[in-house]
Amino acid sequence: MLENGTLIRRLALGAALAAALFPLAAAADEGMWTFNNFPAQQVGSKYGFTPDQAWLDRVRLASVRLSVGCSGSLVSPNGLVMTNHHCASECIQQLSTAKRDYSAAGYLARKEPDEIKCPALEIVQLTGIEDVTDRVKKATAGLSGGAFNDAQKAEIARIEKACGADEKVRCDVVSLYRGGQFNLYRYRRYQDVRLVFAPEFKIAFFGGDPDNFTFPRYDLDVSFFRIYENNRPVRTSDYFVWNAGGAKAEELVFVSGNPGSTRRLLTVSQLEFLRDVAQPSRLLRLAELRGVLSQFSEESPEHRRIAQETLFGIENSYKGLNGQQQALLDRRFFASKVADEKKLRDQVAADPVRAKAYGQIWDEIAAVQPIYQELYLPYTFIEGGAGFNSELFAFARTLVRGAAELPKPNDKRLKEYTDSALPQLKQELFTSAPIYNDLEEVTLRYSLTKLRENLGTDDPLVRKVLGKRSPAELAHSLVTGSKLADVSIRRKLWEGGAQAVAASDDPLIRLAQLIDPDARAIRKRYEDGVEAVEKKNGELLARVRFDLLGTNSYPDATFSPRLSYGAVQGYQENGRPIAPFTTLAGAFDRATGEDPFALPQSWLDARSKLDLSTPFNFVCTCDIIGGNSGSPVINQKAEVVGLIFDGNIHSLGGAFGFDPQLNRAVAVTTSALTETLKKVYGADRIVAELTGA
Amino acid sequence: MLENGTLIRRLALGAALAAALFPLAAAADEGMWTFNNFPAQQVGSKYGFTPDQAWLDRVRLASVRLSVGCSGSLVSPNGLVMTNHHCASECIQQLSTAKRDYSAAGYLARKEPDEIKCPALEIVQLTGIEDVTDRVKKATAGLSGGAFNDAQKAEIARIEKACGADEKVRCDVVSLYRGGQFNLYRYRRYQDVRLVFAPEFKIAFFGGDPDNFTFPRYDLDVSFFRIYENNRPVRTSDYFVWNAGGAKAEELVFVSGNPGSTRRLLTVSQLEFLRDVAQPSRLLRLAELRGVLSQFSEESPEHRRIAQETLFGIENSYKGLNGQQQALLDRRFFASKVADEKKLRDQVAADPVRAKAYGQIWDEIAAVQPIYQELYLPYTFIEGGAGFNSELFAFARTLVRGAAELPKPNDKRLKEYTDSALPQLKQELFTSAPIYNDLEEVTLRYSLTKLRENLGTDDPLVRKVLGKRSPAELAHSLVTGSKLADVSIRRKLWEGGAQAVAASDDPLIRLAQLIDPDARAIRKRYEDGVEAVEKKNGELLARVRFDLLGTNSYPDATFSPRLSYGAVQGYQENGRPIAPFTTLAGAFDRATGEDPFALPQSWLDARSKLDLSTPFNFVCTCDIIGGNSGSPVINQKAEVVGLIFDGNIHSLGGAFGFDPQLNRAVAVTTSALTETLKKVYGADRIVAELTGA
Repeated sequence: MLENGTLIRRLALGAALAAALFPLAAAADEGMWTFNNFPAQQVGSKYGFTPDQAWLDRVRLASVRLSVGCSGSLVSPNGLVMTNHHCASECIQQLSTAKRDYSAAGYLARKEPDEIKCPALEIVQLTGIEDVTDRVKKATAGLSGGAFNDAQKAEIARIEKACGADEKVRCDVVSLYRGGQFNLYRYRRYQDVRLVFAPEFKIAFFGGDPDNFTFPRYDLDVSFFRIYENNRPVRTSDYFVWNAGGAKAEELVFVSGNPGSTRRLLTVSQLEFLRDVAQPSRLLRLAELRGVLSQFSEESPEHRRIAQETLFGIENSYKGLNGQQQALLDRRFFASKVADEKKLRDQVAADPVRAKAYGQIWDEIAAVQPIYQELYLPYTFIEGGAGFNSELFAFARTLVRGAAELPKPNDKRLKEYTDSALPQLKQELFTSAPIYNDLEEVTLRYSLTKLRENLGTDDPLVRKVLGKRSPAELAHSLVTGSKLADVSIRRKLWEGGAQAVAASDDPLIRLAQLIDPDARAIRKRYEDGVEAVEKKNGELLARVRFDLLGTNSYPDATFSPRLSYGAVQGYQENGRPIAPFTTLAGAFDRATGEDPFALPQSWLDARSKLDLSTPFNFVCTCDIIGGNSGSPVINQKAEVVGLIFDGNIHSLGGAFGFDPQLNRAVAVTTSALTETLKKVYGADRIVAELTGA
Repeated sequence: MLENGTLIRRLALGAALAAALFPLAAAADEGMWTFNNFPAQQVGSKYGFTPDQAWLDRVRLASVRLSVGCSGSLVSPNGLVMTNHHCASECIQQLSTAKRDYSAAGYLARKEPDEIKCPALEIVQLTGIEDVTDRVKKATAGLSGGAFNDAQKAEIARIEKACGADEKVRCDVVSLYRGGQFNLYRYRRYQDVRLVFAPEFKIAFFGGDPDNFTFPRYDLDVSFFRIYENNRPVRTSDYFVWNAGGAKAEELVFVSGNPGSTRRLLTVSQLEFLRDVAQPSRLLRLAELRGVLSQFSEESPEHRRIAQETLFGIENSYKGLNGQQQALLDRRFFASKVADEKKLRDQVAADPVRAKAYGQIWDEIAAVQPIYQELYLPYTFIEGGAGFNSELFAFARTLVRGAAELPKPNDKRLKEYTDSALPQLKQELFTSAPIYNDLEEVTLRYSLTKLRENLGTDDPLVRKVLGKRSPAELAHSLVTGSKLADVSIRRKLWEGGAQAVAASDDPLIRLAQLIDPDARAIRKRYEDGVEAVEKKNGELLARVRFDLLGTNSYPDATFSPRLSYGAVQGYQENGRPIAPFTTLAGAFDRATGEDPFALPQSWLDARSKLDLSTPFNFVCTCDIIGGNSGSPVINQKAEVVGLIFDGNIHSLGGAFGFDPQLNRAVAVTTSALTETLKKVYGADRIVAELTGA
């Protein structure tokens, strides 16, 4: 599953080598391209279709980004948004109760008034891009360390504020090519997002964790939202026409979405840090929490229900990150990274002018990795929140920090409290989503235990937090003693500012206050000592790459809008061909009746009515990664023919490099969507809206 | 905690480098020496005391090994055995019930008839060592692959059988120096082992997982057993005299015990396999199961009680293995291993005769690592049992395999079914220890889920095992449907042999039969394709090491009796001196009242009577590892002055190399044992027996 922050990829051994040997093979449909640097000619010469500016603009405007780390598309003139079920599942869970479980039963708004507002979901549409590289670089010229960082953040905050960020506009300065370019992205913002349709979890995630990141596949991983304004559906001309025929084998397709994060441009020392320090540690934390929550889920149907969304996220992250780790542990793949870097360094060293300007980049980045290693656990547990895994604690921290940050000038604040960030922050803080104390206690107990384990029983912060209490006892008293589950209390504290927060005796507010000086200190040490050096040298590295390798390249993914292209095409697995399409019949064949291979009753009931030969899921060669979940697959007429929801197992190494032979994006066909909306769900209203019938 | 198979070590960065630069520094008290190659002169020249043969024999005979992976010592003429609480905890848990919980309450047999027999504990005493290297090597001369393996195993089985293994004698051929030497170890075997004394878990494991593998420390990790024969305590002259004064700072001490496993002699390719494949995978499995069982333990006091022993084992393994992994991830330490290997290879290459005989060793071992990698998951999950984690399943497999193996000639059987192995196997199969279905179901559900996850939903064996059932459903039906918890059923099946097993409709017997062909096939592929090559080249490597580096070296640990030496000595941690001793007062200072930092009521009650200045725990420089748990610390008069129970955090890398600056063994003083046995527990009978008073 592909939401941002979770999808990660693995290169198979043989293919990794192939990719290393032929990084620029003409056949590779590689790249997550920005809309203002799309290789239209390259696509044209390979596929015979050259997108023009009007086409690119139309695609950009019909594409959206969801604040849950996903992508989506507008698919009707009435603001209907298509995305994945797993991108809607947080909203679905928040709207559900034990007695009215939309995750289990699915949801269909038969008329417009039945469309229900999500407690905390923001959807944005990219309306403009402006290059602000010169402004940002000028602000940091000659600076380094903390001064570099402060100047860059301040300049970015000024640019974003001047852009006019408010409830309707979102402005983000995006650092591309790891500091090589800065672009100001201006978005139209929608915060009234309502749930229109979701199928049952059983079919949205048929095959569950075992089939996640695999193909062949049989998932109806779809949901529909509608964006509203002034309590009315948004009318728009920016939408994709629905092509109910679905994608065709070998056809040229595009994926428009927001890939979250890739690390293809990192240096070897940064990759070593990931491989040897960060990723193993994160995997172990995910594995243990997965164990805790899977047992918690066994305890009762209600525990299963309330933990489902969290557990899904953990399992998805775990499987993806493990694939990513396997790619870095693949010695031949890693050797290709080392060789690439050596080649570039040799080129730099061969020219005295370049050697002087760029020769120190790699050593300077390498020199801060041991500092990062030393800071890694304190940062992760104290500032990163791994020691305080709780929604209530997250509210408390936002309130404590907001009270301290908001009185400061915009350009001096922590970046998540700048004016441009506030609308989304407030939406999340004032969400009406329910809080489940059982789940809060379990995750808080677990994370406090890990805090002690990782920092040590005698660490001053650990002693300050725990005192003589056990993690279980402390978690219980914090969760049961806090009033922050009540939105009105959170609103009062936010509006009351520093005075109200200081006067609060809420135990979680007090905990957040207690650790805040430590958290800020560790963050500053990381940002000034590590991040600033990586950023400054990242800029230089980008410059020398443009200089030596040309500008026809794409930046690492940054959870901002990108366009990929490719063909609908199967692949070979252990010498066996994998066809590009599955059919609805395949789902019935694979079903065992037991989760996660149980079909919902609605499908069993509708079986005889369905055309079982309808193509269900398919793969294409488009280059995607986590964050692309919910992206539309479109044809050259910019009609939507599919819906991305995953990558195959071979795609997991894509965080570090693209493997054209095996890396495939996985999508649902619009034909299966149309067929099942009609015949399984009786969703005639939606079908009519999609097809304009 | 140091039982075999679990303790592993971590070298601190700086010290690892120091160890690499000065591997033969005269000061290093390095080595887990065999009793027939102890460096007495070396000890004499450093410490002024040179043990003679009589001294070594006496120490060997007063030392014992426990089948639970621990060490121990005879400490009275009446067969009293001292070991750790955590080595007795399996027996203690097996003897406990919800209402009579000896783990929580401790246990004291006030009179001999109160001493209770452990359901499945074997204690052995090493009575003789014979070199059989020539016989074993002759049997395999000129062979390779499966033929090499078969011939070696058959010859070892013949030697062990001829040695006269029976209920009273145990004979093991031990491969030392990774195939460089084969020694026949003849042990006196005791299977009637009774519990005499154990303190409460709270003080035995004070500080719990957070303090495990750390120092300063405050644990009374002791238990006493007594060995019986013909229903009477064994009378013996082989015992250590009790020195109630305890160890003194800077004094020369020895540790006699059974270190389980080190990998100091592995080649770089073998270490890379551990670092990149085996250890990360095992850590992740341990982490997730830890999560499952920690949540299971939260569900009720009874769940906590029945899972305690298993959870302790997992946490101990996890922390130890993680330390071991950190050592291998330490780039400077690993580089020292690479440099050592290169030096040896260069020496070999420089001489044409040696180059011909030994030059291929490293490449041949490296060539099988990819095969091992391919087999690793199937082996681990199918043959290794990680897919079927259940005591009942273990019984089923033993019954199924026993029925197939016993009719074969002794030298053709799987090694765990040879005559010399049968007494311990039968003791474990016919144990009266209780089986807890709740726990069985949880571990079986978890492991079946991981079986599917690691081998894949569509793997033929996974399909054969699960069919259309979910792991949870299958685990439930297997555990509730099986009758193997009943000892008499197991006995009937064992005695009925192949016919009885074939006729059984027990679902676990049928599962074990179902997977046995696959399990045997994968084992054979591993043994013939990987193990045989490693063994054959291991022999050659040992030979060239003896040739070039001399025979004054110690073999890797093999869970057979060894003797280490060193001094009672503190160390420096981050520039701060750590004193070698703690006191009883320190335990009261560290107590919070909350687990794992809660003292038992007996200690709180006795506080005023105790001499709080009594030395409690201490460290020495002796080279130990997992399996040394329960080892006596003795002085040069061969008096017992302490009881090993752990290593400090810096000892965790000891699996791969010894760090003289920081690596310390952690022990309880006999002075604290005497003081608390008297004043906390009123164990006058034991004190009198120990002190001969």
